[in-house]
Amino acid sequence: MAIESVVSKDWRLQLARQITAVENDTAAGRKALDESFTHAGKAILIGVTGAPGTGKSSLVNQLTKYLRKEKKLTVGIVAVDPSSPFTGGAILGDRVRMRDLAGDEGVFIRSMASRGALGGLALATAGVVQLLDAAGFDVVMIETVGAGQSEVEIARLAHTTLVVEAPGFGDDIQSIKAGIMEIADILVLNKADLPGVESTERALRANLELGYPMGINGKAGHQGTLPAQPEKAERWQPPVIKTVATKGTGMSELSDAIWRHRDHLASANILEHRNRERLFTEFDHLLKQQLFTDWQKKYSKREIDGVLQRVYSRQVSPRQAVDELL
Amino acid sequence: MAIESVVSKDWRLQLARQITAVENDTAAGRKALDESFTHAGKAILIGVTGAPGTGKSSLVNQLTKYLRKEKKLTVGIVAVDPSSPFTGGAILGDRVRMRDLAGDEGVFIRSMASRGALGGLALATAGVVQLLDAAGFDVVMIETVGAGQSEVEIARLAHTTLVVEAPGFGDDIQSIKAGIMEIADILVLNKADLPGVESTERALRANLELGYPMGINGKAGHQGTLPAQPEKAERWQPPVIKTVATKGTGMSELSDAIWRHRDHLASANILEHRNRERLFTEFDHLLKQQLFTDWQKKYSKREIDGVLQRVYSRQVSPRQAVDELL
Repeated sequence: MAIESVVSKDWRLQLARQITAVENDTAAGRKALDESFTHAGKAILIGVTGAPGTGKSSLVNQLTKYLRKEKKLTVGIVAVDPSSPFTGGAILGDRVRMRDLAGDEGVFIRSMASRGALGGLALATAGVVQLLDAAGFDVVMIETVGAGQSEVEIARLAHTTLVVEAPGFGDDIQSIKAGIMEIADILVLNKADLPGVESTERALRANLELGYPMGINGKAGHQGTLPAQPEKAERWQPPVIKTVATKGTGMSELSDAIWRHRDHLASANILEHRNRERLFTEFDHLLKQQLFTDWQKKYSKREIDGVLQRVYSRQVSPRQAVDELL
Repeated sequence: MAIESVVSKDWRLQLARQITAVENDTAAGRKALDESFTHAGKAILIGVTGAPGTGKSSLVNQLTKYLRKEKKLTVGIVAVDPSSPFTGGAILGDRVRMRDLAGDEGVFIRSMASRGALGGLALATAGVVQLLDAAGFDVVMIETVGAGQSEVEIARLAHTTLVVEAPGFGDDIQSIKAGIMEIADILVLNKADLPGVESTERALRANLELGYPMGINGKAGHQGTLPAQPEKAERWQPPVIKTVATKGTGMSELSDAIWRHRDHLASANILEHRNRERLFTEFDHLLKQQLFTDWQKKYSKREIDGVLQRVYSRQVSPRQAVDELL
């Protein structure tokens, strides 16, 4: 084994440890986040979401192989499964993943799963993405199951979000049912060699023409000190890209679409705005959380519960309860 | 004019003024909320939401007339239109409304519209509902356009949420597209005399059978001190009720379904849990808001912006910025 490979192995082990520390929100994890922060902000962040059975994991694998081979880019993958209580282990098609990507030093894979609060998972995922970004990976892919608010939050971390669909569910479009179609920057119609692909594509395009999906752009709704608004942009029309991930078909078209979207974001100053917005959201969240934690230290759970009981029995209003406790 | 009518007119004027004070979040408004709080909690809260063109307003009018005449109940109506910058005026089909309900002392109508933050609108709506509840209206209906997170929040104020659909959009189910079907306790298929009603009904029922909508029950996701969980309940299967609001058809069936749902909520202790949960959410929101406001007073906008700029340029992490400011 060459010296370089040993160094690399150490480096990977250290990164894995930092990630675990961030997941567990330890002092070491916080330190890792603070120290890596100034080095992050360079990676291309790609979100990949879709219903189970659409072939998301295979797509992520094949896209990674394409970016490694054709674009010479290094790739970090964060696979998030909020429905799974396990973490760091074999979830989301990891066996296939290992076979496809194992041994490539330019690829780093991490699985994450739900522990505790959902908001916590989104925050922990943001931390892990930051670590991979700061570690120098050119591309970081964030893969989620894509059903529910938490996955939408996780997908929002990305600059470009792919929503993966597949034929074979009759006329149903899974992403519409799951309410995630509206976050799609690019619609990937995977398993495009299956029967029924034409009708699924028709249904997807019909929905696009209704003006329904529009990406995350311009959906900001923060209160308080807001980052500057982006310049007025041409509206991005999400393309539908057909792929057969298991055969690697459609990867160059998908890659082209991702870079077209990136050009769009850059040209309209949206990327900068989105980055600032994400940092502001994180700041705002941490600030309010810290204020709340500091406040909680001053009272016992029993005192707080006592006041809440009087609210529940309508003796004092929520506002009066707050006044009493502040 | 009889004395009683004069008194009643004064009382209505006073109520209207209190509502305006709550909308504007003045000291008088806060006082009105604190004072009315102990008298609230008795009304039946019904949310009505749906896409524009489904006949929501007519449905609310006809249901109100039915409840007045057949059930002898008084009704307060809060019509919320987050897309409108106007308030207190003629929105959401108020002309039809006035024709149908004007002159009935047992009905009180208030229109609200978006001013400032969306979160603010949901909170203001909660306040107005509380005032009407405390004023003694037996039923309070909350009508929203039903497209987006804020409407879902507003609908969550209600004990029973009606999602209104109508045929005439081809195979499209508007409430699925808008992502509001999942909050439906009762699906109302209005304009049931139009062609295409069978296919819309079929599509609605197919979606119901997929187990998609399930009401708000049991979707709590709070962190911190939680109200007690309700007992294990039989799952509520949202019925599909066909109506022709303009002719008053289907109102007794709709009313029956609302009371069946109410029995369901009561039997499973869900109503009590939902009330507590709402009070807890309000307390939690007000507390965090107040902590944030108190904190903001200590810093000028310029100081905060200065720190944020260093976050945006990646000199300090969001967490370091919070530490610096606390």
